Amino acid sequence: MDSYKLLYQAGYIRESTAGRFFFLPLGMKIQQNIMKIVKEEMDRAGAQEMVSPVLHPLELWKETNRTNTAGFELMRIKDRRGAEFALGGTAEEMFVDVIRKFQISYKELPINIYQFSSKFRDELRARGGLLRVREFIMKDAYSFDVSEAEFKKEYKNMGDTYTRIFKRLGLNTVVVESDGGYIGGEYCHEYVVDSPIGETNYLTNDEGSYNAHEEVALFDQEDVNSSEKMKSIEEVEAVRGTTMEDGVKLHKMPLSHQIKDVLFVDERGRFILAILRGDFDANEIKLKHLVKAVTLRHATAEEIREKLHSEPGFISPVKIHDIAEKNVELIVVVDSSLKTVKNAYGGANKRNRDLLNVNYGRDYTPDIEGDIAMAKEGCMKDGKKLFMKKGIEVGNIFQLGYHYTKLMKKALFMDKDGKEKPYYMGSYGIGIGRTMATIVEQYHDERGIMWPVNIAPYKVHFIAIGKDSVIFEKAAALVAKLEARGIEVLYDDRIDVSPGAKFADADLIGCPYRLVISPKTGDKIEFKKRTEKETKLVTTEELMKLL
Amino acid sequence: MDSYKLLYQAGYIRESTAGRFFFLPLGMKIQQNIMKIVKEEMDRAGAQEMVSPVLHPLELWKETNRTNTAGFELMRIKDRRGAEFALGGTAEEMFVDVIRKFQISYKELPINIYQFSSKFRDELRARGGLLRVREFIMKDAYSFDVSEAEFKKEYKNMGDTYTRIFKRLGLNTVVVESDGGYIGGEYCHEYVVDSPIGETNYLTNDEGSYNAHEEVALFDQEDVNSSEKMKSIEEVEAVRGTTMEDGVKLHKMPLSHQIKDVLFVDERGRFILAILRGDFDANEIKLKHLVKAVTLRHATAEEIREKLHSEPGFISPVKIHDIAEKNVELIVVVDSSLKTVKNAYGGANKRNRDLLNVNYGRDYTPDIEGDIAMAKEGCMKDGKKLFMKKGIEVGNIFQLGYHYTKLMKKALFMDKDGKEKPYYMGSYGIGIGRTMATIVEQYHDERGIMWPVNIAPYKVHFIAIGKDSVIFEKAAALVAKLEARGIEVLYDDRIDVSPGAKFADADLIGCPYRLVISPKTGDKIEFKKRTEKETKLVTTEELMKLL
Repeated sequence: MDSYKLLYQAGYIRESTAGRFFFLPLGMKIQQNIMKIVKEEMDRAGAQEMVSPVLHPLELWKETNRTNTAGFELMRIKDRRGAEFALGGTAEEMFVDVIRKFQISYKELPINIYQFSSKFRDELRARGGLLRVREFIMKDAYSFDVSEAEFKKEYKNMGDTYTRIFKRLGLNTVVVESDGGYIGGEYCHEYVVDSPIGETNYLTNDEGSYNAHEEVALFDQEDVNSSEKMKSIEEVEAVRGTTMEDGVKLHKMPLSHQIKDVLFVDERGRFILAILRGDFDANEIKLKHLVKAVTLRHATAEEIREKLHSEPGFISPVKIHDIAEKNVELIVVVDSSLKTVKNAYGGANKRNRDLLNVNYGRDYTPDIEGDIAMAKEGCMKDGKKLFMKKGIEVGNIFQLGYHYTKLMKKALFMDKDGKEKPYYMGSYGIGIGRTMATIVEQYHDERGIMWPVNIAPYKVHFIAIGKDSVIFEKAAALVAKLEARGIEVLYDDRIDVSPGAKFADADLIGCPYRLVISPKTGDKIEFKKRTEKETKLVTTEELMKLL
Repeated sequence: MDSYKLLYQAGYIRESTAGRFFFLPLGMKIQQNIMKIVKEEMDRAGAQEMVSPVLHPLELWKETNRTNTAGFELMRIKDRRGAEFALGGTAEEMFVDVIRKFQISYKELPINIYQFSSKFRDELRARGGLLRVREFIMKDAYSFDVSEAEFKKEYKNMGDTYTRIFKRLGLNTVVVESDGGYIGGEYCHEYVVDSPIGETNYLTNDEGSYNAHEEVALFDQEDVNSSEKMKSIEEVEAVRGTTMEDGVKLHKMPLSHQIKDVLFVDERGRFILAILRGDFDANEIKLKHLVKAVTLRHATAEEIREKLHSEPGFISPVKIHDIAEKNVELIVVVDSSLKTVKNAYGGANKRNRDLLNVNYGRDYTPDIEGDIAMAKEGCMKDGKKLFMKKGIEVGNIFQLGYHYTKLMKKALFMDKDGKEKPYYMGSYGIGIGRTMATIVEQYHDERGIMWPVNIAPYKVHFIAIGKDSVIFEKAAALVAKLEARGIEVLYDDRIDVSPGAKFADADLIGCPYRLVISPKTGDKIEFKKRTEKETKLVTTEELMKLL
């Protein structure tokens, strides 16, 4: 990861334990410069900064049933009196809790409050330096509105604010539709910076008019042979392996004619049988929303045999409810893609037996039908081809609706009609450390970092070369002059370090402007931009104008 | 506690759970204004801001044996991989750990690095709003020097910096000698603001030329009767209770002639018998240093009988080593005050038996002799009478010496002579929330807070009165004009709130200047300082000059 390597080598950060970082003085300045821009834009948008304790009373997380379903692993701690706390991973409950300490009228809404604070995620693996960590500074904002209609205005306000923030930070972001999680709202977007090292996969078209996370991307399913006449269903011997390819090889029919089956078990012990056209993969996020499950795991071979009385690799939706154990709650979810194919083939719920000419509606019916397929490169949407891109998620905005304010008692405001009503909420996050790493990923070359001016730790990297004290006196005087004008200067006054090493350090650290005074520069100063190769000799007056 | 009441009522803070606070938008501004001043002065002094993770690897605290001896209760947490962490209460280990990740030469020293970060103390009781909490923002700085001599310069530098910081914050601080804890260094000072609600008790003289925490205060012990001739020791019947007063009553002799004994047990199971002149109390801090104990607890009556073969209320240093169990490690510590009294009286290590005419040196000898007495009001030092004062500790500066750098491996720099040597350290703390509460304690009246200008959340509290939209338009225009000049304005534009309520809110919140526009003010603006009673009508131009 270039960003980690460069931030490490240039002395911005050091790892404490895996995924937990020291921000050294240089790194601290970057973090503060980023936070300053985020704060200015949040304040401009009418949000107000505050801060909540790091330790959240665990009761709050119990109130919203989030102790096990936060979407990340919660860290918990007990104090010596036995009180239980969560180390905040996000702060929805805390911000609702503080809001409900006040009697608030509709006239005071919207309220948008935010904080910069340490967040904790008990990730199994940390990787990529600042990109996936266990502890990080996040700006998290929470909005409270009288209604969904008012929330939509605030959501747009925050969207515009994020666009301004990332633009000021020098980042081109793509606004990607993403998963609303357990909320399932329609307003949920990630701000993604295209990058080959990103962990966010999203689908987009040539024009960029549609951008959606692979988990939620919609697409049009091409017809396969839906006008074909239905043939009689037929059970045949099928001595084959258990993969889709084994079926294609044996029957010499296209993958798109095959029936794909994936059996999941949810947190309540329900069996969810996902059925798709063979050329599509199951999208667990879409599936979860459809069946309202919190977590899904794959069923074991044993469960397939003992609970469904079927056979791994040969599961079929045909008569599955008849053969499954009666006490098993089984939900057959059929992807809409199966409407586009006639006379499909697939397993027969018995080892080495397949069914041919299986038809949706005639031979099996779904408990639930819907879109549970993962979009993929090459899919079409609205007549346009979709491509898969990778990017880094640097921020997200999120419709929370009434989820928290209905689960938490007394999260109510006084409306115009004199009635108490729950707030309509949204949340808005930006990871500061990840943003810092993303800027480095976007602004570096083989020699080091190239900070945008408004992020740089110092505007000027000043190098004095030589052994002559006159040089250092001249340099110190000029540094003082620059600093008096409010220009931050990193002054390299080391005597026993070679010019080459000093230049290399300047390139590595990446301040926008490099100034050099040496025996060769005479009365002038050598000026160079980090992003350019040419140097030029300038007078002090010219320098002041340039800076 | 006035500060808690006012900060609560005016909407600066709200409690989450006991001792853990939300800083609401107004409170956040105060916290930031304080931090800004602290940062400016720390940077001016050559210190550099950085930040460490909140979760400290517990191994580091094991490396310095601080898991149980930090002087506060450490909160611990395990992640799901089983790694153990401490929630930072202070960060000596973390800062040594980050420093030892670098190869540092004497040329780069001193290094002084600091952070603002959440600190955690598992206090049994939280009290006084922001004065004693379980979670708080602390500025903690750590200095690394080549030697004690260099450290002393940095210590002075930090002392001067603290004086400047608290002056800018509007606080008169007394620099109080205090306990160096397990380090026991000679350089350890608390910055204390005199306040009747403070938890710091210190002794001072009329001139303020000596200020020392009661735990460490030195004083001259007045002679009682040291020139008196020693009489023969005598054992008498003494049917009395076990208090000092019981002895005075029975023998009709002054308290100062009585021998006081207090028996402690330390963390290693050693018995520490503290012997003092009757009119002095044992000072556990001084005692701990003298015997190098980490914790002391009072011995039980059972232990006194079974281990010392003595009797509660009748313990005597006379022959105590002869009668105590042989396998008991017993250390008799005698306070120097006992040299000032001849022919003292006290217990005889048997129930209802006392000794008369007991003399130090003749009848008993100490294992250790020293100053283990608590100073008290009325004591003299250098010919000046000492008074007890109460105050709030807002900061401290602290000699750490080689304590951490010798316990932690490789905490070494390269010295001039080419040898690796441990750093000589100091630490420097300021509690931000406590400072905020202290400012309120010092700057308030019965109606509310009176913030110093450079701390105030807004410079101006602007009130528009009336129902006439012209008033509100004029007010809004003036607010915009003030804000354009960089003057922060809290604008109360509520229509359905009475003028009286608005004035009361302004007094409660405590911005330095109150401006009013009403139907009565005509073309002018009513101007009032929060600290003064008079109002005056001024023109816009006059107003701009005043602000």
